[in-house]
Amino acid sequence: MTAKNAFYAQSGGVTAVINASACGVIETARAHPDKIANVYAGRNGIIGALTEELIDTSQESADDIAALKHTPSGGFGSCRFKLKSLEDNKREYERLIEVFKAHNIGYFFYNGGGDSADTCYKVSQLSEKMGFPVQAIHVPKTVDNDLPITDNCPGFGSVAKYIAVSTLEASFDVRSMAATSTKIFVIEVMGRHAGWIAAAGALVEDEGIPVVTLFPEVEFDQEKFLAAVDAKVKANGYCTIVVSEGCHWPDGKFLAEQGTRDSFGHAQLGGAAPVVANMIKDALGYKFHWAVADYLQRAARHLASNSDVEQAYALGKAAVEKAVEGKNSIMPTVVRTSNSPYAWEIGEAPLSEVANVEKMMPMDFISDDGFGITQKCKDYLYPLIQGEAYPPYKDNGMPDYVTLKLAAVERKLGDFEL
Amino acid sequence: MTAKNAFYAQSGGVTAVINASACGVIETARAHPDKIANVYAGRNGIIGALTEELIDTSQESADDIAALKHTPSGGFGSCRFKLKSLEDNKREYERLIEVFKAHNIGYFFYNGGGDSADTCYKVSQLSEKMGFPVQAIHVPKTVDNDLPITDNCPGFGSVAKYIAVSTLEASFDVRSMAATSTKIFVIEVMGRHAGWIAAAGALVEDEGIPVVTLFPEVEFDQEKFLAAVDAKVKANGYCTIVVSEGCHWPDGKFLAEQGTRDSFGHAQLGGAAPVVANMIKDALGYKFHWAVADYLQRAARHLASNSDVEQAYALGKAAVEKAVEGKNSIMPTVVRTSNSPYAWEIGEAPLSEVANVEKMMPMDFISDDGFGITQKCKDYLYPLIQGEAYPPYKDNGMPDYVTLKLAAVERKLGDFEL
Repeated sequence: MTAKNAFYAQSGGVTAVINASACGVIETARAHPDKIANVYAGRNGIIGALTEELIDTSQESADDIAALKHTPSGGFGSCRFKLKSLEDNKREYERLIEVFKAHNIGYFFYNGGGDSADTCYKVSQLSEKMGFPVQAIHVPKTVDNDLPITDNCPGFGSVAKYIAVSTLEASFDVRSMAATSTKIFVIEVMGRHAGWIAAAGALVEDEGIPVVTLFPEVEFDQEKFLAAVDAKVKANGYCTIVVSEGCHWPDGKFLAEQGTRDSFGHAQLGGAAPVVANMIKDALGYKFHWAVADYLQRAARHLASNSDVEQAYALGKAAVEKAVEGKNSIMPTVVRTSNSPYAWEIGEAPLSEVANVEKMMPMDFISDDGFGITQKCKDYLYPLIQGEAYPPYKDNGMPDYVTLKLAAVERKLGDFEL
Repeated sequence: MTAKNAFYAQSGGVTAVINASACGVIETARAHPDKIANVYAGRNGIIGALTEELIDTSQESADDIAALKHTPSGGFGSCRFKLKSLEDNKREYERLIEVFKAHNIGYFFYNGGGDSADTCYKVSQLSEKMGFPVQAIHVPKTVDNDLPITDNCPGFGSVAKYIAVSTLEASFDVRSMAATSTKIFVIEVMGRHAGWIAAAGALVEDEGIPVVTLFPEVEFDQEKFLAAVDAKVKANGYCTIVVSEGCHWPDGKFLAEQGTRDSFGHAQLGGAAPVVANMIKDALGYKFHWAVADYLQRAARHLASNSDVEQAYALGKAAVEKAVEGKNSIMPTVVRTSNSPYAWEIGEAPLSEVANVEKMMPMDFISDDGFGITQKCKDYLYPLIQGEAYPPYKDNGMPDYVTLKLAAVERKLGDFEL
């Protein structure tokens, strides 16, 4: 069998470690030249395949590919673009196969969350039917940590570490000043549907910090919340609040959509943090500060979890190894074999069982009062934030992140309207 | 001469490295038992001296004192409490001297910014007159970087590093997604009067990031700003905006005080970042994300600058060494002797020249268009963010920060009304 090319694409919101998976894919592919001739990457994700904007990764030096392991963001570009169902939009799938055929691509590595798992699954199905079989392997990635079967999703562990450490540091700050100044610190974290990241903030309880956490899984109860905060301030002099961006009222409306308006009467997009902070000020009178971490959290490669970086790389590597072994329509997974000390190995899941299944945070991870996490949750989380995998820094004090050349592969097909 | 006790207090907003100065003070004092019997610390800053709530630092182990060097926040508590002028409030100064006298305190180390330098100066003056001379030494600290004479202020370098790195990371994130999604990222940084911290964010220009920076030194010009942002998006596909919390309109009104109101009509305290982001959306239509770093930035010991940690410690150490040499009414300073490689030594400044003098950012540090920094500014900033001084981490993945015992010294005086 002559070697075929591989196609790799990054999907959805990028993370601190998605490039580590890219590094795992490309380095491992380079070690199998008998099976994989070249890895083409999609410029800006799957859109790059549809528009035939492929990046020739063979033009990138070994050092630059290695540097992906410590560089946050999506080195090849990413996009939020979900292919529609096969019935509604067969032409997009057919175009994908056409591009794969034109560039002799026999392997499809798709690095993303639930939507990309679904696309990956469909490509594996359709390519067979269309007489150009492509081995489609999904490489898991999402800070939302909501893919099934795998112990966790690369990207989540690093956000969790960043939020846990940052919440602790800011809480120490407030503790220092609380006797005469700020008594409330509110930090808003990502997670529109699931409270995984908020749960990481709640870990500071183990460091002696009085903390109240607001999860998307628990309907917001203003009275109960204010009572919980007030009790903590009265007992400890201060209180930290971790609020998920997905925290919502019983009617489903997000706290962040409080209907705030600027002086011209325009609806103002706010965050949940200022809403919560002002609510406390109005009801309890406590001086507050608030932070919205936004992209800082998912891009914070400077404080990546070593567990996370190692797993991101290992899953990219395993994807290629499994492809070379002839596997198709699967996703390599992390299998936890021990909590303490943390031990894990690589497993695999059929894409048919991954696609369109969302793993929610188990309700027994949230404490009875709804404002904290259980020991079971802590046992799950700590291993994922273990170890520090610092990037190298330049002499000037800035991190030595790589920007790739991104050389274009010559096009062979006509234009395609997205 | 028999040894006297020393009093140490932390003042104003705490930083990632003020405890490193405390460590320098206490470790150096412990090395001079012939001159300094014990170091008492003020519980919650200078208020602890006025109310005679002193902390006995001899109860803290050598390991715990050493751990202060890598622990953010104010380990003994801090406060924003400015003693009034001698004329208006002589009783507070007299109370201070009375407490010092009762506890045989002959050295006063005050760790803070401009206000505490002023207090420190007055104590040195008054104590002499009151017949109980106290050697008053100011240890510089402020993320605002606005103390005169010293090359920089401990606390600033670490915030600068955190903001420069975080802005770079989030910009990489936006760059990855910009073709089809978010094109604008706004990060709000501290600095109500001076743009030092915003200037650190502007360093990402050297990493190839299109960035527009809004300084408090430059009156906000909405039209010019929007044109600058639009030009960068058109040229690069995306743009990062660093906005100082002190950015204001020509009439002096902060951008953050846009007069936003919630659905009940209450004035809503927002940040400058959402105001700027929504302004861009309204005028140019670009999709945006925004972050407000708030306390995360000044507490971020996990990404402290090594220059900063070393200087914070060295200034605390020098304060004690100079006191032991008999110096009074001074502040040890950082003297820059070379930019590249960065070299510095400890100098000293008389408090009479420090008190009530605010060092602003030189106007030749800001580029002609008002939206960036000059090479001169970069040459100043880079040395301050050089090197990484990571804290140790525990096996569970959390940083190993110390919480002190804070044992109370027995009181000898009556109550004092603040």
